[in-house]
Amino acid sequence: MNTEVKFEAVGVVNFDHWKEAKRFSYVPPALDSNAIELKIEVCGVCGSDIHAAAGHWGKLYTPLAVGHEIVGKITAMGDKVDKTKFHIGDRVGVGAQTDSCGDCRRCSRGLQQSCKDSVLTYMSIDKKNGFKTQGGYASHIRANSGFVFKIPENMDSAIAAPLLCGGITGFRPLMTAGVKEGTRVGIVGVGGIGHMSIQFAKALGAEVTAISRSDRKYEDAKKLGADHYIATAKEGSLDKHEESLDVIVMTTSSFSQNDIEKTLSLLMAGGRLIFITAPPADEKLILTPFTMLLNQYHVGGSCIGSPKDIEYMLKLASEKDIKPWVQRVNISEENVSDVWQKMVDGDVRYRYVFDGYDEYFK
Amino acid sequence: MNTEVKFEAVGVVNFDHWKEAKRFSYVPPALDSNAIELKIEVCGVCGSDIHAAAGHWGKLYTPLAVGHEIVGKITAMGDKVDKTKFHIGDRVGVGAQTDSCGDCRRCSRGLQQSCKDSVLTYMSIDKKNGFKTQGGYASHIRANSGFVFKIPENMDSAIAAPLLCGGITGFRPLMTAGVKEGTRVGIVGVGGIGHMSIQFAKALGAEVTAISRSDRKYEDAKKLGADHYIATAKEGSLDKHEESLDVIVMTTSSFSQNDIEKTLSLLMAGGRLIFITAPPADEKLILTPFTMLLNQYHVGGSCIGSPKDIEYMLKLASEKDIKPWVQRVNISEENVSDVWQKMVDGDVRYRYVFDGYDEYFK
Repeated sequence: MNTEVKFEAVGVVNFDHWKEAKRFSYVPPALDSNAIELKIEVCGVCGSDIHAAAGHWGKLYTPLAVGHEIVGKITAMGDKVDKTKFHIGDRVGVGAQTDSCGDCRRCSRGLQQSCKDSVLTYMSIDKKNGFKTQGGYASHIRANSGFVFKIPENMDSAIAAPLLCGGITGFRPLMTAGVKEGTRVGIVGVGGIGHMSIQFAKALGAEVTAISRSDRKYEDAKKLGADHYIATAKEGSLDKHEESLDVIVMTTSSFSQNDIEKTLSLLMAGGRLIFITAPPADEKLILTPFTMLLNQYHVGGSCIGSPKDIEYMLKLASEKDIKPWVQRVNISEENVSDVWQKMVDGDVRYRYVFDGYDEYFK
Repeated sequence: MNTEVKFEAVGVVNFDHWKEAKRFSYVPPALDSNAIELKIEVCGVCGSDIHAAAGHWGKLYTPLAVGHEIVGKITAMGDKVDKTKFHIGDRVGVGAQTDSCGDCRRCSRGLQQSCKDSVLTYMSIDKKNGFKTQGGYASHIRANSGFVFKIPENMDSAIAAPLLCGGITGFRPLMTAGVKEGTRVGIVGVGGIGHMSIQFAKALGAEVTAISRSDRKYEDAKKLGADHYIATAKEGSLDKHEESLDVIVMTTSSFSQNDIEKTLSLLMAGGRLIFITAPPADEKLILTPFTMLLNQYHVGGSCIGSPKDIEYMLKLASEKDIKPWVQRVNISEENVSDVWQKMVDGDVRYRYVFDGYDEYFK
């Protein structure tokens, strides 16, 4: 591989001024025999992008291009990539992970998303080659073919992109909890992930309750398919819905003991709460054992999904016409900066997607 | 019903001297139309008996007869009891619960064990009639027929008794976690409940790891069927077994953050820990959200089992020849006092069962 190849990107060049996104170029890792290179068309904006860009998760290196909801077309493939599955020009996606070790106990059980040697799409150092990974606010990306997904033909690229991280993150807990026809599912947080989770839960046949702080998201939740709505800040609203749910997917980071206990009170005995985002590292999840026992509550964490899960999700989304609500923005230094500010301000309904890559990275 | 009926019992008459068990008599509640009266033959000694007798859970009333692992023969039945199922003289059992409201959301979903108006076998005030419940260290007991279980013919009464609370408590988490052929199950604590849990997990086809502090229980664990054994106090023992389990049933009250995190490290990603005993009410379960997320851990509580669960467990125990290891002791003031002291000292392998009721309560 020609090591003089350079990819163009937009991202953080200085964490002290992280919101001033700058264009830069970087040398990609050599194309591995199992790797696929894609020319990026669109990339969704995930909450993680903001945490990483802002340095909340450490300031590992600059320049740093974030973005892990990527759709583009295949431009190159390593020797060992399955040529019956992938072809040059195919429209494919990459999510939050570009590789895993492939042979640890987790990988061999199909739990690649929890592999301790995962290569994250950005802000990760690939042990194999020392490459400091760069995400999807860039002209191209190279990823192990095991983490590259064919996009269903009937799905617009900008619609597919947010599914690849936000979508699977909100869908996997429904799989874990065995949600099916008639399961009473609560989705806490009608936001970037929650608005997809509501749709997935409906697609599985669940009776869905959207749970938000105020009434502000009521209309949207109904449009997304929610059967019920709880505005938690309203006096007595939680009491009225006590024991009304079998499964809760918590897409917010409300880990205060009070919040968690109130949320748990919505569960039927034997119910399950699964959370998908973490609060700051020093914040703990504090539960009362006696309450957990008497009510047979179960609380768990979930993190993206395995490649197999993502393939299943894309198929389901294609069949059931599940569509994230996206706001398209042309990628540029100015627009990345602007979108990040809007994300910080909570001004998003419900997923920004950068496009215009051909124009900007020409 | 003749309200002058009196039942004989042995129990706590003064919480300040709780270990000095005394004989007393009490007037039972009128025989409800759905109730069954049994003349008790044997009663197992559960850890809960000690907590209740010692006043750890409040000092609700005296005199108080504890005991909720009861087997005896039917001596009377209310009008509405199903006479095709139960007959005078049948050998039946009663566990930790003698009634539930029967029509709340929990009861109607078969989760009677979590009914908020449960009538516990002892130390509970039955809302229907104000009766202060008395347990199985007594000549007789009356219970709603929905909480009375036929004892399989091939099962000795003293073997059946400990199954009715300890057995179901250790078995229900295995059902919840869907344990089957090949599931890798860890049982923390080789004690009153754990020694039954090991057997149940084996009966379901699991690969079982017994987990105890020292090597002291090694031989017993092997005899009970455990495939592997971890002595947690041994340097490095946990590291060696990292990620080796799919499900952990925690039968001890080791809720310190350190203990829980070490125990969780034994789980494969996506694994489930279920606990069945609670620490003192002010002790919390403290978890690290980030660890829970990345490893997709799930932690839950479990509490006895529903009547349907108990019936299934008795059938399985009968078919698979599951037998708690019991030490029989004749019931008497002196022996109750002595057994309670032994329980406090941890001198039990693994379940005391009081018998000799006919002689003592004649």
